[in-house]
Amino acid sequence: MNKVVAFGEIMLRLSTERHLRFSQAKAFGASYGGGEFNVCVSLANYGLNAEFVTRLPENEIGASAVKEMRKMNVASGNVVYGGERLGIYFLETGAGTRGSNVVYDRAHSSMATIEKGMIDWEKVLEGANWFHWSGITPAISQSAAEACLEAVKAAHKLGITISCDLNYRSKLWQYGKTPSEVMPELLQYSNVILGDIDTAYFMLGIPKVNPNYQDEKSLPVLYSKLFDLIPGLKIAATTLRYSVSASHQRIGGVLFDGKAIYQAAVKEVTPVVDRVGSGDAFMGGLIYGLQEYQNNNQRALDFAVAACCLKHTIAGDYNLVTLKEVENMIDGGATGLVSR
Amino acid sequence: MNKVVAFGEIMLRLSTERHLRFSQAKAFGASYGGGEFNVCVSLANYGLNAEFVTRLPENEIGASAVKEMRKMNVASGNVVYGGERLGIYFLETGAGTRGSNVVYDRAHSSMATIEKGMIDWEKVLEGANWFHWSGITPAISQSAAEACLEAVKAAHKLGITISCDLNYRSKLWQYGKTPSEVMPELLQYSNVILGDIDTAYFMLGIPKVNPNYQDEKSLPVLYSKLFDLIPGLKIAATTLRYSVSASHQRIGGVLFDGKAIYQAAVKEVTPVVDRVGSGDAFMGGLIYGLQEYQNNNQRALDFAVAACCLKHTIAGDYNLVTLKEVENMIDGGATGLVSR
Amino acid sequence: MNKVVAFGEIMLRLSTERHLRFSQAKAFGASYGGGEFNVCVSLANYGLNAEFVTRLPENEIGASAVKEMRKMNVASGNVVYGGERLGIYFLETGAGTRGSNVVYDRAHSSMATIEKGMIDWEKVLEGANWFHWSGITPAISQSAAEACLEAVKAAHKLGITISCDLNYRSKLWQYGKTPSEVMPELLQYSNVILGDIDTAYFMLGIPKVNPNYQDEKSLPVLYSKLFDLIPGLKIAATTLRYSVSASHQRIGGVLFDGKAIYQAAVKEVTPVVDRVGSGDAFMGGLIYGLQEYQNNNQRALDFAVAACCLKHTIAGDYNLVTLKEVENMIDGGATGLVSR
Amino acid sequence: MNKVVAFGEIMLRLSTERHLRFSQAKAFGASYGGGEFNVCVSLANYGLNAEFVTRLPENEIGASAVKEMRKMNVASGNVVYGGERLGIYFLETGAGTRGSNVVYDRAHSSMATIEKGMIDWEKVLEGANWFHWSGITPAISQSAAEACLEAVKAAHKLGITISCDLNYRSKLWQYGKTPSEVMPELLQYSNVILGDIDTAYFMLGIPKVNPNYQDEKSLPVLYSKLFDLIPGLKIAATTLRYSVSASHQRIGGVLFDGKAIYQAAVKEVTPVVDRVGSGDAFMGGLIYGLQEYQNNNQRALDFAVAACCLKHTIAGDYNLVTLKEVENMIDGGATGLVSR
Amino acid sequence: MNKVVAFGEIMLRLSTERHLRFSQAKAFGASYGGGEFNVCVSLANYGLNAEFVTRLPENEIGASAVKEMRKMNVASGNVVYGGERLGIYFLETGAGTRGSNVVYDRAHSSMATIEKGMIDWEKVLEGANWFHWSGITPAISQSAAEACLEAVKAAHKLGITISCDLNYRSKLWQYGKTPSEVMPELLQYSNVILGDIDTAYFMLGIPKVNPNYQDEKSLPVLYSKLFDLIPGLKIAATTLRYSVSASHQRIGGVLFDGKAIYQAAVKEVTPVVDRVGSGDAFMGGLIYGLQEYQNNNQRALDFAVAACCLKHTIAGDYNLVTLKEVENMIDGGATGLVSR
Amino acid sequence: MNKVVAFGEIMLRLSTERHLRFSQAKAFGASYGGGEFNVCVSLANYGLNAEFVTRLPENEIGASAVKEMRKMNVASGNVVYGGERLGIYFLETGAGTRGSNVVYDRAHSSMATIEKGMIDWEKVLEGANWFHWSGITPAISQSAAEACLEAVKAAHKLGITISCDLNYRSKLWQYGKTPSEVMPELLQYSNVILGDIDTAYFMLGIPKVNPNYQDEKSLPVLYSKLFDLIPGLKIAATTLRYSVSASHQRIGGVLFDGKAIYQAAVKEVTPVVDRVGSGDAFMGGLIYGLQEYQNNNQRALDFAVAACCLKHTIAGDYNLVTLKEVENMIDGGATGLVSR
Repeated sequence: MNKVVAFGEIMLRLSTERHLRFSQAKAFGASYGGGEFNVCVSLANYGLNAEFVTRLPENEIGASAVKEMRKMNVASGNVVYGGERLGIYFLETGAGTRGSNVVYDRAHSSMATIEKGMIDWEKVLEGANWFHWSGITPAISQSAAEACLEAVKAAHKLGITISCDLNYRSKLWQYGKTPSEVMPELLQYSNVILGDIDTAYFMLGIPKVNPNYQDEKSLPVLYSKLFDLIPGLKIAATTLRYSVSASHQRIGGVLFDGKAIYQAAVKEVTPVVDRVGSGDAFMGGLIYGLQEYQNNNQRALDFAVAACCLKHTIAGDYNLVTLKEVENMIDGGATGLVSR
Repeated sequence: MNKVVAFGEIMLRLSTERHLRFSQAKAFGASYGGGEFNVCVSLANYGLNAEFVTRLPENEIGASAVKEMRKMNVASGNVVYGGERLGIYFLETGAGTRGSNVVYDRAHSSMATIEKGMIDWEKVLEGANWFHWSGITPAISQSAAEACLEAVKAAHKLGITISCDLNYRSKLWQYGKTPSEVMPELLQYSNVILGDIDTAYFMLGIPKVNPNYQDEKSLPVLYSKLFDLIPGLKIAATTLRYSVSASHQRIGGVLFDGKAIYQAAVKEVTPVVDRVGSGDAFMGGLIYGLQEYQNNNQRALDFAVAACCLKHTIAGDYNLVTLKEVENMIDGGATGLVSR
Repeated sequence: MNKVVAFGEIMLRLSTERHLRFSQAKAFGASYGGGEFNVCVSLANYGLNAEFVTRLPENEIGASAVKEMRKMNVASGNVVYGGERLGIYFLETGAGTRGSNVVYDRAHSSMATIEKGMIDWEKVLEGANWFHWSGITPAISQSAAEACLEAVKAAHKLGITISCDLNYRSKLWQYGKTPSEVMPELLQYSNVILGDIDTAYFMLGIPKVNPNYQDEKSLPVLYSKLFDLIPGLKIAATTLRYSVSASHQRIGGVLFDGKAIYQAAVKEVTPVVDRVGSGDAFMGGLIYGLQEYQNNNQRALDFAVAACCLKHTIAGDYNLVTLKEVENMIDGGATGLVSR
Repeated sequence: MNKVVAFGEIMLRLSTERHLRFSQAKAFGASYGGGEFNVCVSLANYGLNAEFVTRLPENEIGASAVKEMRKMNVASGNVVYGGERLGIYFLETGAGTRGSNVVYDRAHSSMATIEKGMIDWEKVLEGANWFHWSGITPAISQSAAEACLEAVKAAHKLGITISCDLNYRSKLWQYGKTPSEVMPELLQYSNVILGDIDTAYFMLGIPKVNPNYQDEKSLPVLYSKLFDLIPGLKIAATTLRYSVSASHQRIGGVLFDGKAIYQAAVKEVTPVVDRVGSGDAFMGGLIYGLQEYQNNNQRALDFAVAACCLKHTIAGDYNLVTLKEVENMIDGGATGLVSR
Repeated sequence: MNKVVAFGEIMLRLSTERHLRFSQAKAFGASYGGGEFNVCVSLANYGLNAEFVTRLPENEIGASAVKEMRKMNVASGNVVYGGERLGIYFLETGAGTRGSNVVYDRAHSSMATIEKGMIDWEKVLEGANWFHWSGITPAISQSAAEACLEAVKAAHKLGITISCDLNYRSKLWQYGKTPSEVMPELLQYSNVILGDIDTAYFMLGIPKVNPNYQDEKSLPVLYSKLFDLIPGLKIAATTLRYSVSASHQRIGGVLFDGKAIYQAAVKEVTPVVDRVGSGDAFMGGLIYGLQEYQNNNQRALDFAVAACCLKHTIAGDYNLVTLKEVENMIDGGATGLVSR
Repeated sequence: MNKVVAFGEIMLRLSTERHLRFSQAKAFGASYGGGEFNVCVSLANYGLNAEFVTRLPENEIGASAVKEMRKMNVASGNVVYGGERLGIYFLETGAGTRGSNVVYDRAHSSMATIEKGMIDWEKVLEGANWFHWSGITPAISQSAAEACLEAVKAAHKLGITISCDLNYRSKLWQYGKTPSEVMPELLQYSNVILGDIDTAYFMLGIPKVNPNYQDEKSLPVLYSKLFDLIPGLKIAATTLRYSVSASHQRIGGVLFDGKAIYQAAVKEVTPVVDRVGSGDAFMGGLIYGLQEYQNNNQRALDFAVAACCLKHTIAGDYNLVTLKEVENMIDGGATGLVSR
């Protein structure tokens, strides 16, 4: 069975219930998540071997995060321990015209203070055929960026497919470097990139172009720039998100494999139960799809879009849906009827 | 006052809250419901005398079900006791593109092990003018099917109007018989049938025809087959459900009285608070309407459709709305404004 | 900084959770609110000095209401104490085709038994430039109406701008007087009135005209009647509410300043988290806007409409949004995206 | 089967959860209860026919109270409707050194405004062999006291056994009369009285004596005064409550039948889940015991004490225990072991 | 590292919150547990390799049970799938004089319908040095008893240490056999037995003797009977439980190793947060202690008693305490102070 | 009216409910507290003017803390803003033999990064007659210690009474200094010190003596050492805490005023609802008592002990009791009876 290793941060997520504002909350829902971990959960649910590598504090909060990893069937044997704290993010879930709001409290976390050399990547990646990272890790601290580069190089050296979700977060990147100073080297080693064209351009230091994703003629040209700059790139894809309101999204997707453009039909997503992690659900679907439907990029993309749509109906960071449920949605079975 | 007796199973319903998946739930909402009981609750709310007959275990869970019946003003004096357990169903409430999911755990229930002779129908039906059953009871076990037949025959003998909700559930019918082996005899005695044409055909062993409910010309022909096969049939009706998503339904209805076709205007139902039991709300509305608006089948149908729509806004299995609220909706008063 | 004083009743609000009906509730959410207090909260959130004057019972429930005022940064130093009880209202939150329902239990409250002379308005209004009241206070009792008149006269004497939200509630006005017997004198002193034309006509004893708010020609004529009857009137405005369902509202607004008609674009509000208090949010936005954008009535109206829209996404009686959030919405920033 | 009719007020009880103070509560647990109704629930649980007579408002809160009566198997057919509101009491549950606190909000309730003549007692009491009232009803208003007297006289005339729980509440009796002005006439007709000697003396206008309940010699003398003043008195009993803390009570009881003193062994009750209604549980146990163990006053008293002890472990106003559970406790079976 | 394999049933536990009675519950806390699984969780928490073998239905409820196993770090790789349902037990948590109550709904479960041959014990037990079972499995059905015998024989053949918790449950053993017909053969292969002397005698068909556990002289004689009947028996131990009330237990323990009697000091346990599973916590502590403190049976027993005491403070079926916490308690560190 | 200013950190407190362990929690109760703030709340409840000075981050979590201060009637006008985050502490509430556990996550908080010069103490302390700080502030960081020294010196210069709660926390003091390097200079300026003798000795660098607080002869000698080292010291007091278990504490107190020893009677505290902040409640009671009962140190001490006892019954960090409730307890009125 295929084995995917992801590297990143898992955080304690503290969310208000029932659309309450922060100042109204007498309790926060407590769960654990983070972009790269969320991808692992998706893959484990689809039946792949998934392992998550991170750094955790040696306290009860870190221990609770590990229990969540185990519950989700994500291997945690190569987690390293140390540092002061588990990163936290506070989430206030919006509705309608009021968007959701995230307050990060992740500085000084065990993962933010990770350093290269702390993980024995050769050992960790043994037997893996896929490595996944995202633009969040190099955004949290200089040393995390260095640790990420170390991991990417090790994976590249071992000939493992590397995917990256660009995941630009404007509230991060506070340590004195801009994405275009850090990301180009990291992206050199990527084979699959998820992110819209302008985010990719921005991270690579190219001027934005405001692409029209409906124009299938211009897209190959725009994407080709990425393929020019990143020698091993095989797949560039992006979620297309049209945000009607916090409770109503329209989700599509585009994929370019260096030759052809693939488009997925835009789907209505309303109401939104939980929007956070829906990009990770797309990424998880894409990694699964590219492996399982190797000669069928259209289906890989459709799988990613369907997974992303379904995620919006699931509370929490990660996508608790089965392979069968995603396939059922692609194949037209998501009728909204009660199964009984 | 009119008295309606219904026969069927009442179950413990264990539902996840706020669209959680089963594996996320640390608690299940606990309530009690079941198709035929739900009909009784509707009728009691509209002011009729309603009695529910079933078989319950002699334990605290069964006792809790009886307390719920009493609270809802449904007579429970002819419930019989015995057997091992109260049937259970688990409900995971979907949203948007993810449909709700029911896991049945009702085998070996006290009702599934009921046997004919356990209920003295002549005594039970004294003073009743209507008897209601559904296709669920004969679907759970051979002996329940036999007990149902006994009841239907007794009601028929006493000249009581008999209604049946066909209620086909693919996850039931596990005891070795198909609907078409069991239902035809039971339906012989029915005067009012709720169900779409193809379900009726299927249960009677006739090939499906995929009817067009907008085509008012073909419908009388298709319905007439039912009237041919069931000598006492007076009314055949069906809910028309167009499922946009788990959170958005469009509800209409059709009724045929052997002579004319009646159509109710399709109504938008969004969001869906709880979809389960909305068919029972239709049935309850129909039974009430056929009795109260005797010469006005259109209003009876409109009443059933409005009741069904309102049920989607009520949590739990049964329809907690008043006569006035349903009538207000038929008469155009459901404006969504705050009453104050 | 501007200081606004409002006078009215604050109540204990007991609401069912998750769209439950009253008879299903095993608990009521407990919060505190009331039309004029809600306006104060909006203003405090926007950075104005806001003070609320009312009469409270000397018990723990009254003390809890004061704690809520303090938390919301609304001055409570001139609250008077006495009487038997805090008014209560029960709220059942509807959904879709089922509207919300309010059961008032506010008779005999400390505010209902307030009498003129209990508040030293000259002292209270020192330093204030705005006084706000609503049509609810004169609707609860004869003595409250008299106390309201006393307050309005005092504010008028001091040359303070006076605003009134007409707030007609059919379930009130139970003490033997009709609005048209009481309101005309009170409205004499108002400079800003919120309410639709027909409510204003009704309260002033003029026959209803069923105005077309899209017809910008007829509106000045209709509004001028109000300006004729109320000598100091400067601004008359109304929320335009199109209620698609309890979960879907369309909100616009109209403002007339004696010369020109201003219209705000109608906005879609769906889903509705909590509809109660959205009119108060409009009022709060209007009071803020008229002060801050003094030569820009269009922006004042747009501010009021945006505030009203956002309120629908907030649980509880009052509008927990910041100045920046309302301005962001006016300026097109309410995209429903996650802020992170 | 014996039939007991009780007359009194049922209220909405709003309680803070988990020992929260009122000002901390974001929600109140909502249930329904009241002294005389609580007695009915006990009796229904023990298998007697119990009926509760009261006056309720015609709104959804009153309707919810009726649903609770039905659920508890207490007949509600002779409830009368009218008036403005259901009485409310707020409950803050103490712990250890902090006692529980009740805030009454029951003035102006439908029951407080009941008047004599509103209930047809001859019809209501048909078939009843026991009538129960308490000192709360005459404490709430003059007209309720008069309605109570009417009921007591009717019961007396019909030769029905009459019991009264003296239930002195210092926060009531606000309408201008003292207990000793009202209670003597009412108590004339009682056959069974529950209350400590000094409360009885106080209500009858006799000086307090601070009795020693361990002194079995002086007790008959003290009790005899009551028997002298109340011609039909058969049984006088009292709960003996030693309050170690809000979480730890010691419960005993004394009964005098005009001839002999009966004492029940004092039992430790810790922790206290809910202390409210434990006196009503005693009363319910006593009424049951006096009827079922007619020649065994010791067992009747033991039954009342055991019922009272068990009530302290039950959340809510009334005693949700079965006959078997109370008997099991008397017979030494309350070992605290898990039944499985 | 030592590896322990346990065999038994894991159930869905549905418990009322805050001491509510079943009929009061609007929700049930949902967790997963069962005697032998609970032992595994203890062992995993102490750092041993623990694996649980059972049979589960292939539905979402079974899948949720597996997620719980994983979260608790209990290996689930040899679980077999099939059958209809996951066993359920309902738990009503008592307080003070009211004991907790269990309603079993475990008949017809996947584990109850397990048959010998379904599990490849030779493979499962590879690498294990300890096998644990309990008297519950042979109590649920004939076929489960046979499957249990098969497992015990396989473990015996492989020379693995076998422990058994006698766990007599009077509400089980409903399939027509008595313990003394089934248990003697099963116990033949046991090396460690947990249970009081009279339960052991009863299961082996010997008359009860009502032993005095304080009398250290008579105990060896009474225990020796067990050693005579069971050839491989090395350790017999029992929890000593003195139940002051449902909220207050006193816990001690006795162990006999064929030569000497060991006694653990009795500890006060109050309040009881959750009593269920405290015997399993003792068993888990004993298995750990006997392995880790091989020449120190006193410490093994003390460890078991301390673990049992701590379990009473943990909600849910199993003992969520660390090795350090148990050792800290043995060594006198359980002072009740806040660790900060 | 007296005005007390306190300086310290307010944190977000995240606590598990109902004695759950961290890994069981799906939600954390969210409240705000901290030693010195808790003292302010006590004082505000007793009717003093209380102001809290701290440094908060400019985000929604900091804003929520300010709302809590306002609600509690604690002045917040001199709070300074800046830094990255609000400190957090996680609390797992123990029971019986399992103590509560605190996990601090307060490093890098806005208060930990406060620097001297950020607060204008001369302005802040204008009109104050009392300044309170605790040993926590100098324990969190070097710069906080310096800011604390600055404050203490300013208060001293203004002739304001200064109190200090020594509050030793072993999990703090991580920045490279020991208490005896930092505290002596800070304590120089204190007039009132709360803490046991050995903690005071330890912080002042004197060897521990393990005092016997029952021995009223040795205590003056031991306390005198403190008076020798701290020139302005007027009062040294300590809580006496005997911890039977996490749920049962015995609380007394000792006070020395340089001349006489005062002892308060030890009180039983069981059950414990929330133990955290009970020392702060003692401190608050002491500050109040020393001001209000100036010539009655015994009553001041009794007030502090009673306040401390009552705090154990209140959920959350601070003591929500009124002056009347504390006095009632001193005067013997805490009988555990229901007030109604």
